[in-house]
Amino acid sequence: MKAKEKDLREIGEFGLINRIRKWITSSDPALVQGIGDDVAVIKMGAKALLVTTDILIEGIHFDRSWLDPYQLGRKSLAVNLSDIASMGGIPKYFLISIGLPKNLPLSFISSFYLGLKKEAKQFRVELIGGDTSLSQKIVINICLLGEGRKKDLLFRKGARVGDDLFVSGTLGDAALGLKILQEKGKIIGAEGLIKKHLSPCPRVELGQTIAKHHWATAMIDVSDGLLIDTSHLLQESGVGAQVWENRIPLSRLYRKWVHPFLKDFFQLALSGGEDYELLFTAPSEMRERIPYLSRSLKIPITHIGEILPKKEGLHIIREDGKNYSPSRLGFEHFK
Amino acid sequence: MKAKEKDLREIGEFGLINRIRKWITSSDPALVQGIGDDVAVIKMGAKALLVTTDILIEGIHFDRSWLDPYQLGRKSLAVNLSDIASMGGIPKYFLISIGLPKNLPLSFISSFYLGLKKEAKQFRVELIGGDTSLSQKIVINICLLGEGRKKDLLFRKGARVGDDLFVSGTLGDAALGLKILQEKGKIIGAEGLIKKHLSPCPRVELGQTIAKHHWATAMIDVSDGLLIDTSHLLQESGVGAQVWENRIPLSRLYRKWVHPFLKDFFQLALSGGEDYELLFTAPSEMRERIPYLSRSLKIPITHIGEILPKKEGLHIIREDGKNYSPSRLGFEHFK
Repeated sequence: MKAKEKDLREIGEFGLINRIRKWITSSDPALVQGIGDDVAVIKMGAKALLVTTDILIEGIHFDRSWLDPYQLGRKSLAVNLSDIASMGGIPKYFLISIGLPKNLPLSFISSFYLGLKKEAKQFRVELIGGDTSLSQKIVINICLLGEGRKKDLLFRKGARVGDDLFVSGTLGDAALGLKILQEKGKIIGAEGLIKKHLSPCPRVELGQTIAKHHWATAMIDVSDGLLIDTSHLLQESGVGAQVWENRIPLSRLYRKWVHPFLKDFFQLALSGGEDYELLFTAPSEMRERIPYLSRSLKIPITHIGEILPKKEGLHIIREDGKNYSPSRLGFEHFK
Repeated sequence: MKAKEKDLREIGEFGLINRIRKWITSSDPALVQGIGDDVAVIKMGAKALLVTTDILIEGIHFDRSWLDPYQLGRKSLAVNLSDIASMGGIPKYFLISIGLPKNLPLSFISSFYLGLKKEAKQFRVELIGGDTSLSQKIVINICLLGEGRKKDLLFRKGARVGDDLFVSGTLGDAALGLKILQEKGKIIGAEGLIKKHLSPCPRVELGQTIAKHHWATAMIDVSDGLLIDTSHLLQESGVGAQVWENRIPLSRLYRKWVHPFLKDFFQLALSGGEDYELLFTAPSEMRERIPYLSRSLKIPITHIGEILPKKEGLHIIREDGKNYSPSRLGFEHFK
């Protein structure tokens, strides 16, 4: 009998990415950062060229029944802007590849491009090219180029033992909003949560400010969920961390609506994903400066944990003082 | 009664691209070439950054039953390399977004990356990033970056009245190979045609040589078909052209196999697509130099037509001296 062949379910998305890293290694001296971060960085004199790409697929990342084409246009650019923000870069140009069903109404496409244009204008980026194709399901791939000064850029690597761990905004809102949308539709009172899912706001200015002032040692955006993105940062930095559960920033709406949708109060804040907030580490000397930054940009920034030696791994400290290491970190494709 | 809303079938792929151009216009002075060519060009001092993207979707661009994963890996990079070749640029880095079904065997993915790696190595380009996602159908989007000296680059625009029109290689082989594959499978004797479809070879060196020597005035790669790509070049250059049908370069295998698969002998050479040859215009003073180029690179280059004033449009001259303007140029998505 032939043994069943391994498939993607067994290794999951991050298992696949690790294999790709091994299959294809780079030796180009101009390549500052290749696979291993959300953004690739290429040296161009004192400046660096940043490149990132994100794919959105109908039925996987969005559903036409609850995401209108205008929001889809904005969001497909926003998720890429968030990647450039996580490095402290300046987004500049983008290309869009789009696969569309034959019978898609023209009004859908014009609304989509209206949303795309609005988001592009707000963040001062320009559409410079792309590709179009027929497709059964809508597929959108954006490739966003940006720039930054090499010495200012922040990566997943760079966190040091003793650094503080900070996160911007509040967590779990987008994931709870999606859950409400899927289970109950647009219910009155929960619009704020639903909006966080449909119309995320990338933290481009915050990322640039943190990078420019050299306040942080490492940074990542929270797109897959706090735990999983923290673990990415820890892995690339070669460190561990503890996170205080009761310090995780939660919105008033999250606190109000999380029950009865979920039994575990913190679950979506820890592993819901799509927050598009910035998670960064900074030496403790910076602790007093962060509140000024928060006030000047009017974005909450919360000290949620600290960096420990690698052997400590990642653990969460509960309000009662008990701590645990999460077994399942968050969302992962294929698994 | 509500009138039926317009959908994509009515405007077709190029109608859509024209609308996108109108919806989104650019004003950035560093942008040498935005939408309107296959490759976007951004000024970076004396050099230019080139960016192109192509999406391949299972069931639309390829079928797992006849394209194996290794070939798919090579081809998905090759089609992007051909775009950079069409400008005379040097391909450098690429990002790949890939959507994969959950139950896809790992061996499929490792063969795919093996093919990708082989193609990357041959053309000295490096994988620097990407995105992975779950998807019902396989979706592959590559974004390829390249560079060139701004003064050397060739565009769709630039052809002048009186220029000669040249094309590299032979035309129609890939389209005939695909037709044979679809109707009869891998039949003995037609492997050369099938290979042209499965494993296209981008004309990177030829494109660079033409650009570096400033022999051409405009250039494009033949990906959608000779007629449609000629019409793109004519449109962007603001000129017309005549093409001599009996000068169109056909392979021995094409001549042998085209009947009984097709009634019209020239149809696939004119509008089959996926040739990935280079089509370029050059002043008649260059006519004697082209054969040297052809011999030194061992690539046939054929003088197939000439550039006329815009009002002449595009017409084909038959062997009997009769000429016609093709009504349907070639393949277009959505139509």
